[in-house]
Amino acid sequence: MRPESDRLGVLTDHHCHGLVTTDLERDGFEALMNEAPGASPLGTSLFDSMLGLAIRRHCAPLLDLEPLAPADAYLARRRELGATEVNRRFLTASGIGTFLVDTGLDGPGGTALTTPAELAGLADGDAYEVVRLERVVEEVLREETADVPGAVEDRLRTSGAIAAKSIAAYRVGLDLPAEKPGPDALVAALRDADPQRVAERAVSGWLAHTALELGLPLQIHTGYGDPDLDLLAADPLHLTPFLRGTQDLGVPVLMLHTYPFHRHAAYLAQVFDHAFMDLGLAVHNTGALSAGPIRETLELVPFGSLLFSTDAYGLAEHYLLGALLFRRGFARMVDDLLADGDLGEDDAAHLAGMVARDNAARVYGL
Amino acid sequence: MRPESDRLGVLTDHHCHGLVTTDLERDGFEALMNEAPGASPLGTSLFDSMLGLAIRRHCAPLLDLEPLAPADAYLARRRELGATEVNRRFLTASGIGTFLVDTGLDGPGGTALTTPAELAGLADGDAYEVVRLERVVEEVLREETADVPGAVEDRLRTSGAIAAKSIAAYRVGLDLPAEKPGPDALVAALRDADPQRVAERAVSGWLAHTALELGLPLQIHTGYGDPDLDLLAADPLHLTPFLRGTQDLGVPVLMLHTYPFHRHAAYLAQVFDHAFMDLGLAVHNTGALSAGPIRETLELVPFGSLLFSTDAYGLAEHYLLGALLFRRGFARMVDDLLADGDLGEDDAAHLAGMVARDNAARVYGL
Amino acid sequence: MRPESDRLGVLTDHHCHGLVTTDLERDGFEALMNEAPGASPLGTSLFDSMLGLAIRRHCAPLLDLEPLAPADAYLARRRELGATEVNRRFLTASGIGTFLVDTGLDGPGGTALTTPAELAGLADGDAYEVVRLERVVEEVLREETADVPGAVEDRLRTSGAIAAKSIAAYRVGLDLPAEKPGPDALVAALRDADPQRVAERAVSGWLAHTALELGLPLQIHTGYGDPDLDLLAADPLHLTPFLRGTQDLGVPVLMLHTYPFHRHAAYLAQVFDHAFMDLGLAVHNTGALSAGPIRETLELVPFGSLLFSTDAYGLAEHYLLGALLFRRGFARMVDDLLADGDLGEDDAAHLAGMVARDNAARVYGL
Repeated sequence: MRPESDRLGVLTDHHCHGLVTTDLERDGFEALMNEAPGASPLGTSLFDSMLGLAIRRHCAPLLDLEPLAPADAYLARRRELGATEVNRRFLTASGIGTFLVDTGLDGPGGTALTTPAELAGLADGDAYEVVRLERVVEEVLREETADVPGAVEDRLRTSGAIAAKSIAAYRVGLDLPAEKPGPDALVAALRDADPQRVAERAVSGWLAHTALELGLPLQIHTGYGDPDLDLLAADPLHLTPFLRGTQDLGVPVLMLHTYPFHRHAAYLAQVFDHAFMDLGLAVHNTGALSAGPIRETLELVPFGSLLFSTDAYGLAEHYLLGALLFRRGFARMVDDLLADGDLGEDDAAHLAGMVARDNAARVYGL
Repeated sequence: MRPESDRLGVLTDHHCHGLVTTDLERDGFEALMNEAPGASPLGTSLFDSMLGLAIRRHCAPLLDLEPLAPADAYLARRRELGATEVNRRFLTASGIGTFLVDTGLDGPGGTALTTPAELAGLADGDAYEVVRLERVVEEVLREETADVPGAVEDRLRTSGAIAAKSIAAYRVGLDLPAEKPGPDALVAALRDADPQRVAERAVSGWLAHTALELGLPLQIHTGYGDPDLDLLAADPLHLTPFLRGTQDLGVPVLMLHTYPFHRHAAYLAQVFDHAFMDLGLAVHNTGALSAGPIRETLELVPFGSLLFSTDAYGLAEHYLLGALLFRRGFARMVDDLLADGDLGEDDAAHLAGMVARDNAARVYGL
Repeated sequence: MRPESDRLGVLTDHHCHGLVTTDLERDGFEALMNEAPGASPLGTSLFDSMLGLAIRRHCAPLLDLEPLAPADAYLARRRELGATEVNRRFLTASGIGTFLVDTGLDGPGGTALTTPAELAGLADGDAYEVVRLERVVEEVLREETADVPGAVEDRLRTSGAIAAKSIAAYRVGLDLPAEKPGPDALVAALRDADPQRVAERAVSGWLAHTALELGLPLQIHTGYGDPDLDLLAADPLHLTPFLRGTQDLGVPVLMLHTYPFHRHAAYLAQVFDHAFMDLGLAVHNTGALSAGPIRETLELVPFGSLLFSTDAYGLAEHYLLGALLFRRGFARMVDDLLADGDLGEDDAAHLAGMVARDNAARVYGL
């Protein structure tokens, strides 16, 4: 199931999650579709959205249904085939060859999601682990270790992860300190911290600086997310002092999602050497309209600073749609530019390769 | 005067105002056109705008003139026909069947505008009243009632209004308290309040919470408005704590206008069950370019959470253009999606019906 | 080198800078291309961007190369021709007849840029000087004058400049005081000020109010700029109190650049009589995608309140591209509106003339 025009080829998904391995009823499926907790008693089905249309249009044929099959027929067929077969079909069709998997988020109700190795197996590709910083410090705190900072650093050093992930946006907002918090401030903040949910600015800042000092590329949630978020505090522009303070380290900082602040992130990715961005999560959620944000992003971001990701979580549809719609939006923009003489075929191939794979290979040293 | 393609049919305008019933000279007309107080001594005519072009293009033929007739000819013909005839022609042509009228705003210089019943009569439709919260509390304060909160609640309970309207954005910004202010905080704030213009956060918060507790859907001004506004404080994202604090009540909160923060509102309308939005005021002001904001809005908002409104005020042109341009922008987007196979004719009819009428019927219990 | 469709004719560039007069190696050229300090060790060439494509596509033919010639070939040919010939070719081709030049910014490493008279000579046009407020006060402070405010006012009065320029966005953010700071506050702030880099809110506010009181139109940097900037503090909406406080003076305030907050600036330019805006810097940086921001801007800004500028600095490519891409984006929008019947040829000519020249002539009294 390739889109009409594809210029990207095999993709590296630099930020994603595992999949649910059980079969889902309509409620369970809708709860995983987008960032709403589920269908609203005041509203209508979440299928009445650009994402819902995209699932019915692009995913149904992969389950041997007509395009735009009704939601109930789609979900019945999905259960009939079983989660493993469905996951395999969508991952194979996505054309993603490499997965960087954030393993710090469990499935619904604390259930297990597919591991990076299982994901790679389903797609016949490669997978790497991204370690979630907040999860590490919370585990260490719950173990009542004497030297919490030392233990966190040890785990990051030996985790085998290819990158670190920060969800500071959900905990304290993105106004992270430009300088690494000193030992006193850190100890005081750790003393106040809830080991179930660390939400101290000094801890979030220390984690982010520490990851970079250890040479781990730092993925940071910005923009669009679930209702736990204060979206204004997740505007990537709040990272400006942090980016200014960390640019001399020369370790990449990757702003995830970024929508609806993708133009803000594109600005940062232009003016800071070590700042990179993606549109994950936003692409599949905006469905057939995702070409708009893709185009807006490319106004300012250097092609060398944009990465592909799906931010898929739970549903394999996210992988298929994230890839397919990004291919479509990117190809349409390139086709328009070619038609106007604004770039040549060689340029198109060069720039597409950067965005699809080469930037990720360079940034993460794959 | 229907646009080239209409998929919406009869519309419910869930937020609008009455019309001026006197004939207008050019100054008076320009003062009512958009959110500027009038033409600028440093600038040029307000007809030199997308709204001005839209009036000359779409409204002139309804007054028996050629499309794009000059502004002076247009205004002369408007006076010749007289306000009542002009109002009747535009309202009939708008295809609006139901009006929810905010009666809390007078005409220029304190003059009377058409009542909801008069509006309904001009359009041969139905009308309901929306009660403006600030006006109620200011009236009660001016009467020096002993129990102000009790009197406000009584009036809201017996007002017969179908919804309440808050202009907190103009008075204190949208950072309303997540919890209903307690009696002490309320009494203190009411003691400080100017009965001509209440601008206390505790009062605005108490009014908004009270309306919801009484089961009244709450319309809130957000985004675009006149120069009294601090537009940054009118970003609907400031409502996040209020929405989080009121979601369990299950009573709708309707974010009005939302432009240029329509993507922010669409996010809230996706993740909060009881949050809804419109693009009123922005559609007619952006004229032929309104298709852009409509498309951006639909990226994330569930079709079940978007309503139609004009926010028409004073000039019947606002009704005609708000309806016509929303029809046009919506139809063009749907036509594009159909052409690409991204939805089917059945989907188009279903989603259009929701936005045009069905969401309003469900939300307000019409 | 005219774009395919031009509706603007001879342009007045109401905000720009001088050009480098020496020949540039690749590093020196890339350092001047956009708002990044140079190519990133983690990234790729800055030519891998919409601006880079636009240079290769539109500028190469003016140096007798094929469109989309490789960057190295382009730069070699540029050096071969020499900076003076290159500057002459691009300026002539830009179709700009009048330049308002901000002379407050030196070239790389403190080198001299072309003077306004030299620019005018290269283009066979006219040039006027815009005086940078921060530079004036810093010069006066370094001279240890007794009466600093008096000396600043004298220099502004006798500068011969046609307008003043504020970079408050870089120093204190755009939340300038609504009222002119009094003598005590000013004296205290001047005492604290660093004569190399004044960054006191009271000083920035006093300078802006003083320029307007002297009748000098005030250009203010807003939005997009280099990494010294806190972009959130450069949102033009922070100017709301300042605009409210200065509207009775009747002297124009011109919001420069504005991207990615161009819709915010367009709102201010609609509701405040004395507020004007441009898209300089953003147009050439967003290359072939600049049509998007131009269209978004025109949603709300009155045609009488939008001006053309390039914000060219150092490289003559900025003049060529700023003009060519603005012509192209404006013409495409107008052509679309004409095709839909949304305006007529007379309207198109009238509105284009305003944006290209007439607004600048009126605002600056040219």
